[in-house]
Amino acid sequence: MKITLIGSGNVAWHLGLALQQAGHDLVAVYSPTAAHREALAKVLHPAKAVDSLDLRAIDAELFVIAVPDATIASVAAAIQVPEGAIVVHTSGSQPLAALQGIADARAGVFYPLQTFSKSKAVDFSTIPILLEAEDEQTLKALQEVANTISKEVHQVDSLKRKQLHLAAVFACNFTNHLLGISRQLLQQAALPDTLLQPLIQETIAKAMLSHPFQVQTGPAVRHDQNVIEEHLRLLQDQPLYQQVYQLLTQSIQDHSPRR
Amino acid sequence: MKITLIGSGNVAWHLGLALQQAGHDLVAVYSPTAAHREALAKVLHPAKAVDSLDLRAIDAELFVIAVPDATIASVAAAIQVPEGAIVVHTSGSQPLAALQGIADARAGVFYPLQTFSKSKAVDFSTIPILLEAEDEQTLKALQEVANTISKEVHQVDSLKRKQLHLAAVFACNFTNHLLGISRQLLQQAALPDTLLQPLIQETIAKAMLSHPFQVQTGPAVRHDQNVIEEHLRLLQDQPLYQQVYQLLTQSIQDHSPRR
Repeated sequence: MKITLIGSGNVAWHLGLALQQAGHDLVAVYSPTAAHREALAKVLHPAKAVDSLDLRAIDAELFVIAVPDATIASVAAAIQVPEGAIVVHTSGSQPLAALQGIADARAGVFYPLQTFSKSKAVDFSTIPILLEAEDEQTLKALQEVANTISKEVHQVDSLKRKQLHLAAVFACNFTNHLLGISRQLLQQAALPDTLLQPLIQETIAKAMLSHPFQVQTGPAVRHDQNVIEEHLRLLQDQPLYQQVYQLLTQSIQDHSPRR
Repeated sequence: MKITLIGSGNVAWHLGLALQQAGHDLVAVYSPTAAHREALAKVLHPAKAVDSLDLRAIDAELFVIAVPDATIASVAAAIQVPEGAIVVHTSGSQPLAALQGIADARAGVFYPLQTFSKSKAVDFSTIPILLEAEDEQTLKALQEVANTISKEVHQVDSLKRKQLHLAAVFACNFTNHLLGISRQLLQQAALPDTLLQPLIQETIAKAMLSHPFQVQTGPAVRHDQNVIEEHLRLLQDQPLYQQVYQLLTQSIQDHSPRR
């Protein structure tokens, strides 16, 4: 398929490479920043770098908007595409409706469920791709493209995608923050940063094999009030962490009342 | 070294195996439950199963108390060992002082920093072992034993071990709970349980390579109030999860004020 990328961030970069490797024609790359669009167009040679969102003259069937969530609306308001072209965004948190109103276009969502860093290669074949489209024919076209780069393609509507995004905030964003707090506590105690890594890895591995609620360990699930109170004392100069400790302890205990 | 195990749970089981494989003599196993002490003694053949905490007649130099935290005090009150023997517990949350008062014994702590499941083999060589002892000579003896099973042996006093345990509660116990909430949210949305696994694994891998605070992503760190409010609406029937969402969002934003 002939594809144009709108955006030059991590998603555009990795998705562009994966699509090109799967044999698609990357015809153009748009970014408002000249250096960015030229860098990505060069990587996706012979794609050309374009500096306008009037893309009506571009010979492509699929236009992929891979820009920050907050920018999708302004891109959607400005973009112009050839009649009948498919326009998708790649966001987990934005509805399909964010693209409605683009003249002559068929709207869809093409959401690769992964976090990308420019410096780190990714194996797209194991990354779930979640699709949504305004009609059956558009969905089918997107499925064909998605199947060329991933083995895990799902149709997920906007509400479910929002629920999924919420689940990801708990599993990834919040989890990352707790790992940050933990690292900070190690540093405050002058302990090596890496000391907990084997334990963290084993904890995650176990949580993948079972339902995490069934393999919960620690003072909260044991209702070990002495340890909990000592931990809260250690946190007395960090009241926000103390609140986080108390609330998560309460949430764990809510799932496993004292026997 | 001649070693006796007090306890027959996961820690006793894995530690006993690792010590035996390293060439130590496991001479006896105590547990109040006959089936448990006999099962572990059999695995650690020719160790014998013993049913009394009067261990004065046991020819061993090291007695390892690997029992639940809440049981350490009662074991310490009852145990009797040969004069000059070393007695250690294996707990991350209990002080060295929990063992003081055992007549004729030299007290220590031998804390393997990992979570164990009976059914899953472990590579002890990468598991940090944290040691503490009431005197230099005892510490040295424990270091010699620990070095035979692990490449990561650290001396950590009771206060630091408590701080480490607190850090582990955030990184492991609380993280596991968040993964459980996430899994529950996927189930409520009728989405596959495994959908987030590639994203979770990549998130953890990134958090290991950098300081997690520096690689934080998501609506909280972006101060994306629209998404945050939609998420809170989705959680309106789960007020405790709503509180967790709000507090962790606040904690993330506390680290990265709006630019």
